[in-house]
Amino acid sequence: MLTDIEIAQQTKLIPIDQLAHEYGLSDDQFIPYGRDKAKVALDTSNAKGKLILVTATSGMPAGSGKTTTSIAVAQAFKKLGEKACLALREPSLGPSFGMKGGAAGGGYSQVVPMESINLHFTGDFHAITAANNLLAALIDNARHQGQVDLKEITWRRVLDVNDRMLRNIVTGLGGSANGIPTETGFDITAASELMAIVCLAAGEEDLRVRLDRLVVGLKRDGSAYTCKELGATGALMALLKDAMLPNLVQSIEGVPAFVHGGPFANIAHGCNSVAATRAAMTIADWAITEAGFGSDLGAEKFYDIKCRMNNLQPAATILVTSLRALKWHGGVPLPEIGKENMDALINGLPNLKAHIVSLKRFGQQVVVSLNHFANDNEEEIDVVRKECLAAGVRFAISDGFAKGGEGALDVAREVMVAVKEGSKPLNYAYSLDESIEEKIQDVNTKVYGGQDVSYSSAALKDLAKIKALNMGFEKLPICIAKTPFSMSHDPDLKGAPHGFTLPVQRVILNAGAGFLVVTTGAIMRMPGLPKKPAAYTIDVVDGKITGLS
Amino acid sequence: MLTDIEIAQQTKLIPIDQLAHEYGLSDDQFIPYGRDKAKVALDTSNAKGKLILVTATSGMPAGSGKTTTSIAVAQAFKKLGEKACLALREPSLGPSFGMKGGAAGGGYSQVVPMESINLHFTGDFHAITAANNLLAALIDNARHQGQVDLKEITWRRVLDVNDRMLRNIVTGLGGSANGIPTETGFDITAASELMAIVCLAAGEEDLRVRLDRLVVGLKRDGSAYTCKELGATGALMALLKDAMLPNLVQSIEGVPAFVHGGPFANIAHGCNSVAATRAAMTIADWAITEAGFGSDLGAEKFYDIKCRMNNLQPAATILVTSLRALKWHGGVPLPEIGKENMDALINGLPNLKAHIVSLKRFGQQVVVSLNHFANDNEEEIDVVRKECLAAGVRFAISDGFAKGGEGALDVAREVMVAVKEGSKPLNYAYSLDESIEEKIQDVNTKVYGGQDVSYSSAALKDLAKIKALNMGFEKLPICIAKTPFSMSHDPDLKGAPHGFTLPVQRVILNAGAGFLVVTTGAIMRMPGLPKKPAAYTIDVVDGKITGLS
Repeated sequence: MLTDIEIAQQTKLIPIDQLAHEYGLSDDQFIPYGRDKAKVALDTSNAKGKLILVTATSGMPAGSGKTTTSIAVAQAFKKLGEKACLALREPSLGPSFGMKGGAAGGGYSQVVPMESINLHFTGDFHAITAANNLLAALIDNARHQGQVDLKEITWRRVLDVNDRMLRNIVTGLGGSANGIPTETGFDITAASELMAIVCLAAGEEDLRVRLDRLVVGLKRDGSAYTCKELGATGALMALLKDAMLPNLVQSIEGVPAFVHGGPFANIAHGCNSVAATRAAMTIADWAITEAGFGSDLGAEKFYDIKCRMNNLQPAATILVTSLRALKWHGGVPLPEIGKENMDALINGLPNLKAHIVSLKRFGQQVVVSLNHFANDNEEEIDVVRKECLAAGVRFAISDGFAKGGEGALDVAREVMVAVKEGSKPLNYAYSLDESIEEKIQDVNTKVYGGQDVSYSSAALKDLAKIKALNMGFEKLPICIAKTPFSMSHDPDLKGAPHGFTLPVQRVILNAGAGFLVVTTGAIMRMPGLPKKPAAYTIDVVDGKITGLS
Repeated sequence: MLTDIEIAQQTKLIPIDQLAHEYGLSDDQFIPYGRDKAKVALDTSNAKGKLILVTATSGMPAGSGKTTTSIAVAQAFKKLGEKACLALREPSLGPSFGMKGGAAGGGYSQVVPMESINLHFTGDFHAITAANNLLAALIDNARHQGQVDLKEITWRRVLDVNDRMLRNIVTGLGGSANGIPTETGFDITAASELMAIVCLAAGEEDLRVRLDRLVVGLKRDGSAYTCKELGATGALMALLKDAMLPNLVQSIEGVPAFVHGGPFANIAHGCNSVAATRAAMTIADWAITEAGFGSDLGAEKFYDIKCRMNNLQPAATILVTSLRALKWHGGVPLPEIGKENMDALINGLPNLKAHIVSLKRFGQQVVVSLNHFANDNEEEIDVVRKECLAAGVRFAISDGFAKGGEGALDVAREVMVAVKEGSKPLNYAYSLDESIEEKIQDVNTKVYGGQDVSYSSAALKDLAKIKALNMGFEKLPICIAKTPFSMSHDPDLKGAPHGFTLPVQRVILNAGAGFLVVTTGAIMRMPGLPKKPAAYTIDVVDGKITGLS
C-alpha cells in the first residue's frame, strides 16, 4: 500500500495557472508561487456558492478524517458534474514534526503538493510569526527606552514549533543593556491572536482596524495599551500583506482548494480564513469547508464567530464519524477501536446523537458521513445508519481515503438533497448582547451538555479587568478553549456527558481578533514533542521529501 | 527627489520567466515565486564567469554604499555590452525594522522587487529559523524524555528580529511538565550556524554532511553530541530543501541578480551563498558579488573561508570608499562628514591605504571605487585618486545611486583592465594546518594591523574543549567576529591602528559551517531596536508598502 506522500507525489498536477484560468481567474487575479501554488487577489463581493461545513463527532487521538472527507466530497461533486471548491486550513509546522503528522488529507483525498503545504507553503505562518514577534520586540523596546510604563504585558511571542521549554520563560536577563527581566512565554503560532486576525479580517482596511485595536498591555492606570498607541500597525500591515491573500492549490483529482489560515480549534477558533471561504464561494457553486475537531469546538465557533462576523449562512453541515471514533467514546481503549464490538458502538452512539442535536439546534441540515475502514462490519454500520435516520438526519458512507471522490458520491448526493430541503438561518448559541458569563453558560448548556459554569479566581479577575476597561469588550463573541476528546472540558468524560460544571480558568481579551478566549481545564497554548517525534522519520531522498504523513 | 522605494516601485520589471529564458535557463531549471522572483536549480559545474568581489574601507554608521556600487557596476557592464550577473546577500528582516533599513541597494542601483526582497522574499530566512528552532526543541525534548544527559547545550534558538530581551533568557520554567530550567538565549537568524551552512554547502549531499556533524552540546563525558546522533538531520534537510536554491531577481536596469543567503559580516562570515555565486558565474561572463562591511571583515572571510572551501579565484576586487567614510576615519563626527575638510580627509587616508595593502597581499588586482555624493569636492577627490595611484591600484568614481549603470561605466572599464592584468592565485592569510592561535595571530597581523592576541579565560577554556574533542576541529578556518568601525577590535580606533592587542573573548565551534567563530570585544549576536525604530515609518498605503528604505 502506498503512503500518503507517495500517492501525493505520483499525482500529475494541473499547472496552477491553467487551473486558475479554468475557474475564471485572470492573470492579474493570482500570483504563482512555484508551478503548483498561487496567491489569489479576488473581488469576493459576489460570493454566491453554497457553503457546506464539514465537522465531526468528538475527537480521538487517531484523528477523525474530517479533512479527508472534505476533499473526498469536493471530488465527488466534481465527478457529479458540479463546480466545487475547497476552503481548508493550512497545516502548522509544529505538529508535522511532533505527534500528529501533516494535515492535508489522506490516501486518495489529499490536497497537493502535500509536502509544500505541510512545510513552509507560501510562508503565511512565518509572516504571522514575524509580525507577532516584531510587535513583542517593539513593546519591550518602548519599555526599555522609557517610552511607556506598563503594569502588565499581555502580548506573548510565538513560534511554529512544538517546544514545551518555551511555555514559561524569563527574558531580559544579563543586565540593563539587555532589557528588563520579564516573565513571559511563547505560544504556537496557530494559537496566536494574529492568526485569528488574518483569518477573520474582511480585507486590508479591516486588518488595519483590527491591528489598531490590539490590546498588548495595561498601563499603570489600568487603561489599555494598544498597537495603535505604540505605532506598530503599519509595520505589521507590511509584514502581513501577502499572508492575507488566500492560497490556491488543488486536490489529487484536480478540484481547486483555497488552503489558508490555520488556527487550532481547541485553543483558537479553528477555521480557515474568511478570504479563502469567500474565494471558494466566488469561483465555484459549492464551497466545502472544514472546522477543527468536534462540532462542539470548530462548528460552534464557525457559526457563532466566523459566520456571524461575516454574515455567512452555511447551506448544510456534514458530520464526520466512524465506527472507531464511536467505539472509543463507547469506552474501548485506542488499540482496540478497529475490532468488532457492538456493545462499545452502542455505548458510543450518544456522542453522535449529541452532536446531531447540537447541529440541528443551530438550524442546519445535517448529513452524517461515516468514514469507512476496510474491515468495518456491516451490521455495525447499519446501527449507525438507523440512529441517524431516527435522529432525522441523512446518512452516507465515505470511502474517500481509499477511493477518492468516487468513494464519496453518496455523501455528495445526500448533501445536495439536504441543501434542497434547506437549512434555517443560523440560530446562534448566544446573542452578542448577553453578558460574558451568560454567553459561556449558553454554550455550555446548548452545545456541550453541561449544567453550571465555575470561575477560577484568575478568571474572575480577568472578567473584572475586561469590564473595567469600559471599551465594550463584553459585547464580543467568546472563543472557548477546551479538550477535543470530550463534549465537556474533561477528556475522560466520553460519550455525551451531562450535568457537569464547566471550570473557566482564564478569560483572555483578543480585541483585534474580536473575541474573548475562555480557557477551561488544563489547556496548553504551546504543545510539546512526544517520545518519538515524527521529525525522526522525515528526510530528503533523491531530492524528494519522505516520511511526512 | 524620489525615495528608494518609490524608484523601485516605478520600475517596469521584466517578467521573471522572460529574464530566466534570456539568460539561458529552461523551464525546468527555475521555479517562479510570484511574477518577479524565481528559485533556480542549476548545474553549476561549468561556472566560468569572472568573479569580481566588491568590498569597502572600514564601516561607518551611515553605510558605505557597497551593495549600491555592486549593482551599479553590474548595470555598467550591461551597458558596455557585457553579460553580467549579481550575487548578493538577502537582507535580514530584523534590521529592516530597526536602525538600518533595507539592504537592496539604493537610488537607481537597486535590486527589485525591493519590498519583497527586504521583507519575506522567498522565505529562506524563515526556513532557517524554523529548522534552527526545531533542532533546539528536539534537543530539549530528548533531555526532557531522559534520552540524553548533556553537560552543556551549545545550540541556541534564533529569530529574525532585533530583540535585546531575547539575548539572555531562562527557558523551561513552570514545573517539570514544562521542561528543565535552562539558561540560554536567541541570536538573530543572520548570525546562526544554519545560515552559514546554507551559504557554504556545495549541494544537497554536502548539506547533509554538514548537518550531521553539527555539534549541539557536550555529553557528560565531554564528548560531542551531534545532530546526527540526535537523529534530526533528515527533518532539517526537509525544512532547508527550498532554502538551498538561489533566488533570481533583477536590478532596476534588468541585470539578473541571485540574492541568496544573508549572514552578517561582523558576527558571521558575511557573504551570499556559494550556490548564488556559482549560479551567477554560470549564466554570465561577469559575476559581481559583495562581502559585508570593510575588507578586514567580509573580504578576509570571503577569501579565507568561502573561496578556499569552494576553490573560487576572484578575478579582481573593487574597494568602495567615499570622502565621507574617509573623513569619518579622519576624526570628523558623523553629522559633519558631508562638509569639505581636507585635513580630515588626509587624516583618513591611512584607512584606505591599509585596506589596499591588505587586498594586494591576498594577491588581488584592486580598483578603488569612490562612492560619489552631489556636493563632493573635486580637489578632495583628486587627493584620493592620487593616493590610489601611488598605492599601485586603479581608481574610478561611481555615481550609481544617482545615475544607475551609467554612473559606474568608469569603474567597470577599470575592472576590465585590471582583470586583463590578472590577479594572482589567492594568498590566504593563514594555512589550515596552523594552530588556532596561529591563525588568529596571522589575521591580526596581516589583515588588521595588530601586534598581539590575548585570550579571556573563557576563550582558553573554549580552546581546550575544542582540542579535547580530538575531532580535528583545529584544522578549521576561523571566522572572527569584531566591530566593523575599525580595522581593530576597538570601534574608537579609527584610520589604520597599529600595535594593538586583539582581545579574544570566546572561540565557538561551528562544526557544521566548518569554521571556528572567534569573538573579540563586545560582540552582540542579537541586535536591539533603537529609540525610533524604522518600523514606525513603514506602512501599506493603497496596497503598496511605504517607508522602507
